[in-house]
Amino acid sequence: MVDEHADPTVGELREGVILRHILERLGESNALVGPGDDAAVIAAADGRVVATVDTLVHGPDFRLAWSSAYDLGYKSAAVNLADVAAMGATPTALLVALAMPETTRLSFVTGLADGLRAACRDLAPGCRVEGGDLTVSDTLTVAVTALGALAGRAPVLRSGARAGDIVAVAGGLGRAARGLRVLFERFTDAARAPLPVDESVLTPAERDDLAAQLRPAPPVALGPIAADGGATAMMDVSDGLLLDASRLAEASGVSLVLDSATLGDDPHSALTGGEDHALLATFPPDLPLPSGFHRIGHAVSRGADPVLVDGARYEGRTGWDPYRDWDARTG
Amino acid sequence: MVDEHADPTVGELREGVILRHILERLGESNALVGPGDDAAVIAAADGRVVATVDTLVHGPDFRLAWSSAYDLGYKSAAVNLADVAAMGATPTALLVALAMPETTRLSFVTGLADGLRAACRDLAPGCRVEGGDLTVSDTLTVAVTALGALAGRAPVLRSGARAGDIVAVAGGLGRAARGLRVLFERFTDAARAPLPVDESVLTPAERDDLAAQLRPAPPVALGPIAADGGATAMMDVSDGLLLDASRLAEASGVSLVLDSATLGDDPHSALTGGEDHALLATFPPDLPLPSGFHRIGHAVSRGADPVLVDGARYEGRTGWDPYRDWDARTG
Repeated sequence: MVDEHADPTVGELREGVILRHILERLGESNALVGPGDDAAVIAAADGRVVATVDTLVHGPDFRLAWSSAYDLGYKSAAVNLADVAAMGATPTALLVALAMPETTRLSFVTGLADGLRAACRDLAPGCRVEGGDLTVSDTLTVAVTALGALAGRAPVLRSGARAGDIVAVAGGLGRAARGLRVLFERFTDAARAPLPVDESVLTPAERDDLAAQLRPAPPVALGPIAADGGATAMMDVSDGLLLDASRLAEASGVSLVLDSATLGDDPHSALTGGEDHALLATFPPDLPLPSGFHRIGHAVSRGADPVLVDGARYEGRTGWDPYRDWDARTG
Repeated sequence: MVDEHADPTVGELREGVILRHILERLGESNALVGPGDDAAVIAAADGRVVATVDTLVHGPDFRLAWSSAYDLGYKSAAVNLADVAAMGATPTALLVALAMPETTRLSFVTGLADGLRAACRDLAPGCRVEGGDLTVSDTLTVAVTALGALAGRAPVLRSGARAGDIVAVAGGLGRAARGLRVLFERFTDAARAPLPVDESVLTPAERDDLAAQLRPAPPVALGPIAADGGATAMMDVSDGLLLDASRLAEASGVSLVLDSATLGDDPHSALTGGEDHALLATFPPDLPLPSGFHRIGHAVSRGADPVLVDGARYEGRTGWDPYRDWDARTG
């Protein structure tokens, strides 16, 4: 018998034992059929379900010296909850595919489950992990599928913005990128390998940025509110405002004119930093902006550039593309 | 500019270019909102959605010397379609999270997309890949989420078998395990490293077994038929009949008595081999078995053992547990 109190590795345990420890952490199921069968059955009361998947991979997406298991669980849930919200939907369930080395400790798995549950509690009450899959892999990988309910609303697509619309954002911009910069500048050794984080050396502002990077808290509840408030287009800002705004502009056939004075003290980070998972939306000019959104610009007829900042093309790197930007040597 | 006709690596391409090549292969969306937005929107006409996820990881789950990209796409879809079918549901959509090394060739990605599409076409017409995620990873990993519709049926759980029920199976048993044995015995070098498969050296029976291992074709359409035919419990046989039958027995609080004479020429492989994704179901004794199912035993009141074979406990290894059985050195 393996002593489960001695924090064994998952390679020492049977799958059923690991599952039991995970399920104990996740709380009561809210599903019609929860974990334990071949599949879950989730309510989709209006006859439609919103579905999205996003994966966090050790190396490109997180480092274990920087992210705790709890952080990883929290972030892997949050980024997917934001995608559901960006359609105007309320998250109803997560499925988690966890691939991990045999040397992974049981405490890591339970910490990850705690983070998943906490993100649901904080960002999408009523949503739970209702299914998943455990596999062995040399590379720790968390693929989360999020489902959501539109409750009769039309989904808010990227393609609905019209010339004259107000461009607005809910949630932070640039904070997660500043948090990543803190990690690379303060918590790496000479070879740029990650070092454990000691938050006591950070200012309160740096700690906030670090939290936005490690445990993002996107404004999930504002997605349905934006839809009900007349949003014509919406998406979550995962790869940086400029890049994602250009995607929304391309899909809608408009150009977006942003006002850098509305982007806070650090407009460059706000424009180019990824991983904030803020909600970017457009609204008709004659409607009041829903509480939680603030105006950052307006949409115009399509011009030469999809996005202009203060009337001009923004020069420089505009966002994160994993196939262009990931460097296995430095991260 | 990268020449897309010269089969570049994904590390040489932008994410958008890779996505475009994938989407070209997948055919027309059947969803309310298909690929291209923050999330898909899938019809769930009866107000419920069945949802499951299963992951294939390079090493434990497949070897690139043995599986083509097409095989990998086909299998990663098929194993998830079987889980949806095992609830009594019809698959409606797949979401595919693909994590791959930067050195992966574009032709590999398009081959994988072809395999995903072919599995849907063969096993679940109407189901398509409606969303997904691309990330960089040192370990090639395919996590597929499958959604399904119950069309008003009650989901068929593992827990509904009653004493007196007939135990029946649809689909092959033991073939995928024999196919894996062919691979390990015929297509490895002295160090057990995989060698490319030359099917011309195989007998027709060996080729069939290999196909069952590399491109499993579970009887997905029979899942809803079993539900309509009164199935009291059902699951897909992924880890071997004995192990999965014992799970069904435990969930239902019965014992299952199997008759080895009904299991074909190779009852040991049928009892212990995994990865067939046959459907194991129980039916009331007074109803005719749906076409495609054949009787392999019956359920009795719970005894000391969850499963008996020919009246006795079956000795020996009974199925695959990735955390017990995977050995990174030999696979």
